Order: sequence, then C-alpha cells, then structure tokens
Amino acid sequence: MSVPVVLDRFRVVLARPSHPGNIGAVARAMKTMGLSRLALVAPRSFPDEEATARASGAVDVLEKAQVCDSLDDALAGCLFAAALSARQRDLGPQPLSVREAMVPLLAAGHQGEVALVFGNETAGLTNEEVSRCQMLLTIPTSPDYRSLNLGAAVQIVCHELWQAVAMADGDAQQQTPRATLGEMALFYDHLETVMRRAGFLDPARPGRLMLRMRRLFGRAAVEPEELAILRGVLGMVAEHLPPEKPIVE
Amino acid sequence: MSVPVVLDRFRVVLARPSHPGNIGAVARAMKTMGLSRLALVAPRSFPDEEATARASGAVDVLEKAQVCDSLDDALAGCLFAAALSARQRDLGPQPLSVREAMVPLLAAGHQGEVALVFGNETAGLTNEEVSRCQMLLTIPTSPDYRSLNLGAAVQIVCHELWQAVAMADGDAQQQTPRATLGEMALFYDHLETVMRRAGFLDPARPGRLMLRMRRLFGRAAVEPEELAILRGVLGMVAEHLPPEKPIVE
Repeated sequence: MSVPVVLDRFRVVLARPSHPGNIGAVARAMKTMGLSRLALVAPRSFPDEEATARASGAVDVLEKAQVCDSLDDALAGCLFAAALSARQRDLGPQPLSVREAMVPLLAAGHQGEVALVFGNETAGLTNEEVSRCQMLLTIPTSPDYRSLNLGAAVQIVCHELWQAVAMADGDAQQQTPRATLGEMALFYDHLETVMRRAGFLDPARPGRLMLRMRRLFGRAAVEPEELAILRGVLGMVAEHLPPEKPIVE
Repeated sequence: MSVPVVLDRFRVVLARPSHPGNIGAVARAMKTMGLSRLALVAPRSFPDEEATARASGAVDVLEKAQVCDSLDDALAGCLFAAALSARQRDLGPQPLSVREAMVPLLAAGHQGEVALVFGNETAGLTNEEVSRCQMLLTIPTSPDYRSLNLGAAVQIVCHELWQAVAMADGDAQQQTPRATLGEMALFYDHLETVMRRAGFLDPARPGRLMLRMRRLFGRAAVEPEELAILRGVLGMVAEHLPPEKPIVE
C-alpha cells in the first residue's frame, strides 16, 4: 500500500514540548505512519541536536516543522482538532478512546485539515488549549500507570490512524456486494404483505414487528443472491395464502 | 478496568538491545499497558543510568528484569513465542499484522506463557532467533519509512494487546443474548420444511439453498426475540401450505 493521500490532511501539533528528544521521537513516529506535517507551539529548544539524533531517518519532518507562537497559529486552516488528554475535563467534550475516534477523525480528514494536538510532557494541555479542540482523545492504559511518553503517545495515535486508513481502503476494494437500500425496501414490503396475509401481522396493531425484521436483516447486510432466495420463498408462499382483505374505510 | 490477569502471562523479550535508553522506554511502554515481565538477552549495557531515566515511573519493571545469556533461556517456560519482524523471511511462518495476531496471541495467553520477542535495533532478529518462535508479527508502516524505534514498536504491540484484552472483556460482559445453536437448528428445519411445502425447494435437488440461508442468518447472529418472530411467521404460513408429500421409496 502506498501512503494514502488523506494522511496529508493530518498534522501533529505539540504544545510547549520540553524535551527536544521527544520532538525527534515524534517526527520518527509520524513518518513511520505516513504523516509529515509537524507544528511546534513554543518549544523549549528547537532546533536541537537531540531532536535530530532521535528523529533518525525522519529529519525531513523536523526540517519542515512549523514553529508557532500560539496554538491558534498552529491550528490555522484546520477544520477539526482533536486533543489527547489523559483525564476527563469538567468542561469540554466527552473523551473518545483513540480507536473509537478514528471513524469521525477520518471522516473529518476527508472534508478538510485535521490537527492532532498533544500537550506538554509534564503539564499536559491547559483547559484553554483543550477549548480550541472539538474532540478529546484518550489512549486506554493500565490504571496502575498511565504515564505515556510523548513520543509513545504520538506513535499509538499515528498507528491507529494508519490502521484505520488501511482498513477503510481494504473495505472499499474488496467489499462483498450487498443488496441496495431500494432492493431491501421492496423485500420489506413483500415480507410485510406475506405476514399480513398469513394473519401474523395485524395492520391495526403492527407493533414493532417490521422494525425488528429491519434490524435483523440490516445487521446481516444481505447479499443479492440471498435476497433472491428470500424473495423467491415469499413469492411461492404467497400463492398459497388468502388474498389481502380490502381495507374498509 | 483493572489490569487483566491474563497479561501476567505475557513477557517481553529484547534480543541483544544496544541502547540502554530503549530498554528504559520499553519498560515504560510495557507498564502503561499492564505488562511487567521483561527479559533481556545479552544487553550491551544493563543496568544503566539512561535506562533508569527513560523508564520514568516504570523502574520496577527494570529492577525485576531477567538478564539472560541466550534467547532459549529467555523463552524458558513459554508455550508460545511471537517475533516482531519488519521483513518476510524465506523460512519460518507467514507474518501476521499486529492486529490480526491478537486473537491467536490472546488464545495462547489463556493456555500458557507467551513471549513477545523483539530484535536488536540495527540488525533485528537472526533467522536462528526467529526459528525459536511460532509466529511472526509485523507492524504495518508507511512504505516510505519503516524504521520504528524499538520502544515505539513495543509500545504499539503492548497497546494492541491491551485493546484486545479490553475488548474481549467487554464482549464477555455486555454481549446481546443470541439464539443458541440448538434453537437455530430447529429454525433451519422449520424453514426447510416451509420451503419444501411451498414448492420452492425440491428435495431431490436441494442445491445450496439451505447453506446460503445458514450463512445469512449466521452472519446476523439472531436474537431470541427475532427468532420468535421468524418462527411465528413460518408457523402461520405453514397452516396455508399443502401437506408434505409422502416420500415414495
């Protein structure tokens, strides 16, 4: 698989990073997962030899990194920003685990620029910084020790993003064909008619029967050949059933 | 969620690590994901100040680490070993991506001790070392830059393990009830009878009709209430159908 184009829409933003080594580790983590756009808000020391050493073959990411005075500058042009946070905030959005978050994040990436925002190693993100973001991300950890290194946290988020993009690609390429919504609507009509004519469904009191059937077959994601069988059975059965009672006004 | 007991069965083995800093980063990565058992095969320098510094709050993992002369010593007592490898080997098992690998790895962890084996930073694992392992793991990366830092690789594998254990726990606790296999067998019999009596299924040439229906409803994982509706419809329909033709010998 080549690097998916959508990953160009994602930037990593580090707010006030203290340790240059971590900046290098972040660059390396990003590049292994196809990301190249790094923004640094008020880094304590950058450029720095230690960052360069730890970046290894990802020095190009450091060289292109944008150094900003404020988080607002680093988020310029973004449609969506997600902040990593180890703790629940009193204000702000409900946190999503990094894996759950990938569906909305990828959807955002298909519409515009997305920022993944990580806080300072010791202090994390301020409430002020979190308030600039539309989503809170958490990485599930052991309750006994939650302290992820900054580079390690970025590595996990970028890995989850790469996996999500690869899976979306795979889904698009090798999906089994499914019956269309229009075909399924005709099937539900047919099923409902048979249920009525067999006396199972009382049109005056339909209850949740059809809703239940829609849930069941919706979950199954019916294939066209399977639908042909179901429609065939309904058709043959219907020949034996009494006719519909005319609706009396 | 507390730390799941099964994680005690997993050990991380580093073969000939060169950089003490990476050993510390590995200890920290492990502890954030609930792992505590580290084995080091012929480390260049251990114990080492840099390892201690990078371990941060996971110094206890370093203190308990087992230093071994050979990979065989580090694997003592293991039922199963999985080796991380960036490249396909001529010999040895087909590599599984780290996410795919979690199902068999967790299954192994429920049966016995499991080792996750990582090679030297520069040289990786030798074929000799890989031959000691039953599974090859790969972490999907960008084709443009595959060079994961050792600590980062361990972080990803441990994160995937934590996620897999958490999900298995969640599945066990909050699964929607499903119809049993016995109930489904009665339903398939009932459906087959109706299909036959309606003239849709010719017992002399059944083809793959029932197989298809089993696949469809199997995929849907039918809930008991849904099954009651399906059985109810079949029962009412059957009242209108001609009787089964006696089987003529």
